[in-house]
Amino acid sequence: MYETKAYAAASATSPLASTRIPRRDPTEHDVQIEILFCGICHSDLHAVRSEWGPAVYPIVPGHEIVGRVTRVGPAVTRHKTGDLVAVGCLVDSDGTCPSCMEGLEQFCPNQTLTYGAPDRHLGGVTYGGYADSIVVDERFVLRVPKNLDPAAAAPLLCAGITTYSPLRRSGITRGKKVGIVGLGGLGHMGVKFAHAFGAHVVVFTTSPGKAEDALRLGADEVVMSRNPDEMQKHAGSFDYILDTVSADHDVNALINLLRRDGNMTLVGAPAKPLAVAAFGLILGRRSLSGSSIGGIPETQEMLDFCGANNVTSDVEVIPIQKVNEAYERLLRSDVKYRFSIDMASLKAG
Amino acid sequence: MYETKAYAAASATSPLASTRIPRRDPTEHDVQIEILFCGICHSDLHAVRSEWGPAVYPIVPGHEIVGRVTRVGPAVTRHKTGDLVAVGCLVDSDGTCPSCMEGLEQFCPNQTLTYGAPDRHLGGVTYGGYADSIVVDERFVLRVPKNLDPAAAAPLLCAGITTYSPLRRSGITRGKKVGIVGLGGLGHMGVKFAHAFGAHVVVFTTSPGKAEDALRLGADEVVMSRNPDEMQKHAGSFDYILDTVSADHDVNALINLLRRDGNMTLVGAPAKPLAVAAFGLILGRRSLSGSSIGGIPETQEMLDFCGANNVTSDVEVIPIQKVNEAYERLLRSDVKYRFSIDMASLKAG
Repeated sequence: MYETKAYAAASATSPLASTRIPRRDPTEHDVQIEILFCGICHSDLHAVRSEWGPAVYPIVPGHEIVGRVTRVGPAVTRHKTGDLVAVGCLVDSDGTCPSCMEGLEQFCPNQTLTYGAPDRHLGGVTYGGYADSIVVDERFVLRVPKNLDPAAAAPLLCAGITTYSPLRRSGITRGKKVGIVGLGGLGHMGVKFAHAFGAHVVVFTTSPGKAEDALRLGADEVVMSRNPDEMQKHAGSFDYILDTVSADHDVNALINLLRRDGNMTLVGAPAKPLAVAAFGLILGRRSLSGSSIGGIPETQEMLDFCGANNVTSDVEVIPIQKVNEAYERLLRSDVKYRFSIDMASLKAG
Repeated sequence: MYETKAYAAASATSPLASTRIPRRDPTEHDVQIEILFCGICHSDLHAVRSEWGPAVYPIVPGHEIVGRVTRVGPAVTRHKTGDLVAVGCLVDSDGTCPSCMEGLEQFCPNQTLTYGAPDRHLGGVTYGGYADSIVVDERFVLRVPKNLDPAAAAPLLCAGITTYSPLRRSGITRGKKVGIVGLGGLGHMGVKFAHAFGAHVVVFTTSPGKAEDALRLGADEVVMSRNPDEMQKHAGSFDYILDTVSADHDVNALINLLRRDGNMTLVGAPAKPLAVAAFGLILGRRSLSGSSIGGIPETQEMLDFCGANNVTSDVEVIPIQKVNEAYERLLRSDVKYRFSIDMASLKAG
């Protein structure tokens, strides 16, 4: 066991502050990683403030981790010292259940989340990526293509895979008309992936100010979702819609834009149940589904795709000392489009 | 043009009463059918009472028609005098749109509903199956296997195809665990089909009194959907759920019973939007979809399947003179499980 610098919240109402946390010494299959960048996901904020259930404090959030391998256990075969690697939302799973057998570790009933989950090595809970280093089983360490900017690659580990996975599984290819609802951390990655897959991409937003940026990111059209006339022009025309909005909103107006057998997938999770009109689903034989992250094989596939197609997140790099301010800005959607913490600032601070 | 006896409502508040309506003389591709039985669908009641939008009166409902061919136009090749045939919810479509090309006439933008739709032959609106005879383009006339009881086969044309289609498209086969929600006209057909496809069938009902009947119809288990303990036992275990309930109900409790990537299909249409929790869809990558009837090829496939597997509806045969009483009983769910009107009573009346 050794100690590493980190930023942690001591309670649901405390700001994040500098601290020291324990990490295990790498065991046989472990990889020790010096963290270079960690993205800020909105769920970090929910977790820190116990908004999704009571957190165990202190909590060290962060599950969009990119770093450099500093040491490997003797049985590690997939990574070596010096490799650019990444860790996402999971650091362990049982490896034996049907979901793990399918490479869908995100559905393993015995999965270990990167932070806030029982730590079977050290006791207590796992600590995330707002830290100097982390030690992770090699099965949960991903390879980052060398051509990607590490700061901009970090958000791929959650925002990236969360949008890549449903778009890929929905068979989005050239010629498909795809809607992306909301242009935030998730939405801007959805636009990039749908565009990279060759689709005709339409962004739905309530902010006229985002139109220009949407086109820059790869959208072919922008629709103001509160304008019924603009919406009506697209009735029944979408093969697929990815809805990234986590605020309450009118999903029926969007569902009605789907073609027959079209699907809309929710990746944002409004706290309040959504009002879904049965007729919109029945008449077009449409479906509404949900999706979260992907499994390890799909996450690696996504990173490789990003390397081959030069896809990363648009990030604002901040020092760790600005993390509390960043949380406040996140609440105001004042970020284009993801904060990425430069962890060199932690060493310095 | 000729006249035929029928039962029609003169207004949204009038009872159905005996009348005479015009039918066209069979043109080249037409089939004239003597109607033997017509099922009573709940949508007949909605239409007659202008509950789904204003009806054109007089209205002659009925789209679960089984009859005998009495005459065919000179170009008719699919049917001949004396054949046992059926007509469902559609009597025409453009035949040229992409949906028609795929045999999905139910999505043709120029489809003609069996009743209440503009009649391009005679003007006015089409008149349905509560009548002595009907004349329909041969493309919309289906073959009824000879071994099926015509009275019990009539409901297959709407309740049958509405449940067969989503179950079939969902790939329900031996070994799958399937839930059927609600045990009415649609639900009892869902049980029969899911059982015939070899699935392990679980009926969800709020009526303890329906348990015995559910097992008789082919269910393997019955769950009281208002009992949280009983529901919890099935958490995450269903491959597929068919929800036939058109009253407001808790769909989240059902969605949570689906396995990963499981789907629940709505075929009942509650008037009020359903409250759908996003998390239930997201965490299990589940989906909620809708389905209505099938196209003509699939409807014929369903009838052939019913012939081969001896599947029909459980019906209470009534004379047409009891149709208004039957509507009142339908509102109280006082029928096991579908009324089928014996049209011989119309000739007599």
